[in-house]
Amino acid sequence: MVSLDHISFPAYLGVDVGGTTIKIGIVDNSGRSFAHGKIDTDHERGPEDGVRRIIEFAEGLLAESGLNWEQIRAIGLGTPGTMDVKQGMLLHMPNMSGWDHFPIRSYLADQTDKPVAFLNDANAAAYGEYWVGRGQECDSLVMFTLGTGVGGGIIIHDITLDGAHSHGSELGHITIDSSADARQCPCGQFGHLEAYVSATSVAKRTQEQLDEGEESSLQTTWSEQGMVSSLDVATHAEQGDEFANRIIRETGHYLAIGITSVLHMIDPDIVVLGGAMNFGGHQTRAGRAFLEAIRQRTRELTFPVLAENTIIDFATLGSDSGFIGAAGVARKQFG
Amino acid sequence: MVSLDHISFPAYLGVDVGGTTIKIGIVDNSGRSFAHGKIDTDHERGPEDGVRRIIEFAEGLLAESGLNWEQIRAIGLGTPGTMDVKQGMLLHMPNMSGWDHFPIRSYLADQTDKPVAFLNDANAAAYGEYWVGRGQECDSLVMFTLGTGVGGGIIIHDITLDGAHSHGSELGHITIDSSADARQCPCGQFGHLEAYVSATSVAKRTQEQLDEGEESSLQTTWSEQGMVSSLDVATHAEQGDEFANRIIRETGHYLAIGITSVLHMIDPDIVVLGGAMNFGGHQTRAGRAFLEAIRQRTRELTFPVLAENTIIDFATLGSDSGFIGAAGVARKQFG
Repeated sequence: MVSLDHISFPAYLGVDVGGTTIKIGIVDNSGRSFAHGKIDTDHERGPEDGVRRIIEFAEGLLAESGLNWEQIRAIGLGTPGTMDVKQGMLLHMPNMSGWDHFPIRSYLADQTDKPVAFLNDANAAAYGEYWVGRGQECDSLVMFTLGTGVGGGIIIHDITLDGAHSHGSELGHITIDSSADARQCPCGQFGHLEAYVSATSVAKRTQEQLDEGEESSLQTTWSEQGMVSSLDVATHAEQGDEFANRIIRETGHYLAIGITSVLHMIDPDIVVLGGAMNFGGHQTRAGRAFLEAIRQRTRELTFPVLAENTIIDFATLGSDSGFIGAAGVARKQFG
Repeated sequence: MVSLDHISFPAYLGVDVGGTTIKIGIVDNSGRSFAHGKIDTDHERGPEDGVRRIIEFAEGLLAESGLNWEQIRAIGLGTPGTMDVKQGMLLHMPNMSGWDHFPIRSYLADQTDKPVAFLNDANAAAYGEYWVGRGQECDSLVMFTLGTGVGGGIIIHDITLDGAHSHGSELGHITIDSSADARQCPCGQFGHLEAYVSATSVAKRTQEQLDEGEESSLQTTWSEQGMVSSLDVATHAEQGDEFANRIIRETGHYLAIGITSVLHMIDPDIVVLGGAMNFGGHQTRAGRAFLEAIRQRTRELTFPVLAENTIIDFATLGSDSGFIGAAGVARKQFG
């Protein structure tokens, strides 16, 4: 049990709904998460059951922390998919169709008798990094979430950019190439950033080049497994494979094009890179080479003042940023 | 003389500095400009002399309106070039080198004993359209200013996006093409929006295609004048020239790619197109065809919710938007 002396009240419940798991945490007023965990989404059981299990799990967290519901001021809830933020409504949840058009904000508020702040999961993660993560000292932050897809979050002067139609900060879908050779994005359009730098896209780009006969230790993986992941690229790059290292530099190049458009449009204090598609992050040589490629190419492409002054770095909260950020937005709205 | 009964006090002085002229106006609390005019910039006489003449002209406007300095609450000042908004400092003024590194905000404040709001001219114009122009009913607005170059302004929840390093909203410099064939932008980089849709770029694209032998009534203009302007394109399109009309549609296509990135990043209520490079705007068939091309291509490229709901239209304040918007920002900061 946590000593209550160390908790800065009031506390907030943060919930980060994903397709596979739901992360839930209790976060105090200073942004410290002192009890958290996750449950399976089990989306086929429907959103009402999901909310019931979120509450049940939160009650367990409260009990083990020696807290009760009265000490929770408000709830923050981040979800994927398309939504109507103003109405608190899920619209289309990819692979969770039973949750479509569910008024999740009011339902969760009714079941808990707490005010609920509702937003896009990537904006929640960005707010987490802004509040207590890598962007803690900054007034504005842009976060790219690099995973199976590419998400994004933009925070300016403590405001999350939800957008007029709940489509703000969709950084995976800015165009980096409009030529006839542009790659197709999973959304159907061509030349979007996501089509170059998501884990899926990195794997696809790698496999295409291996198919063309590039010399690499990855050829064995490719012929044995019939697939190559961005993790394989990181591993082989770490072992010194030149082709794998080139894939990493190319990925940095593409990301830098997207970052440049963001800098020329938003001009934030910091760009934060979150998500698992980081070739190992600060911990590995491959990850550090990725970051250096991004920084160097961005410096070459942007206005000098921005090249010199904008921080670009990996996120620090890992997969906790979503529920922490959701709690932070609840604090901002209802604290 | 204007009847004072119709003026909603306090009033604000708005100043829009350009390379050739400085527009100056008195704007009341409701956003109505009731006295305005312009003076030559005569930049070679230096910024101190420029400020002196701005004040002199403003005093004339006040006198003819039967007002005095006491009825002016604050001054709004928009300038081109690069600047340090927080410090109120001009950094680099293209073609106005004597103005570089001049602390214009504090100098103007000292000379008038009024608080001065200072910002980028394109952000000022966007704020004008947001306050009392085409975006009047909207909560968020993005404005492209299409002229010799391409500027931009972004307003979200009444906040102008100045950026952490005074480089926010540089919409001419978002990348729309990163292929080897991308056009070079006047800034030196490649594939920026400005390299496709500024008046200069439209003229260049047109001339290149005429050189390649495109059949068009513009060929005569091209061989007689040795140049073709975007105005020529508009005129010939209006007269039914198919090639000129295709140039207009292509320009709409390129702009739509930039607008799509903006919608996926900012998701504003409205996108407003200002500046003289509009092929005649709502007044001509060529201008309306330009707008329709932009709207149609944007609908094809963006997420369905945005395609259906985001307004795209020409600006309504013309070249008054700069000083009106500057006055509006002064009202917001000091009203």
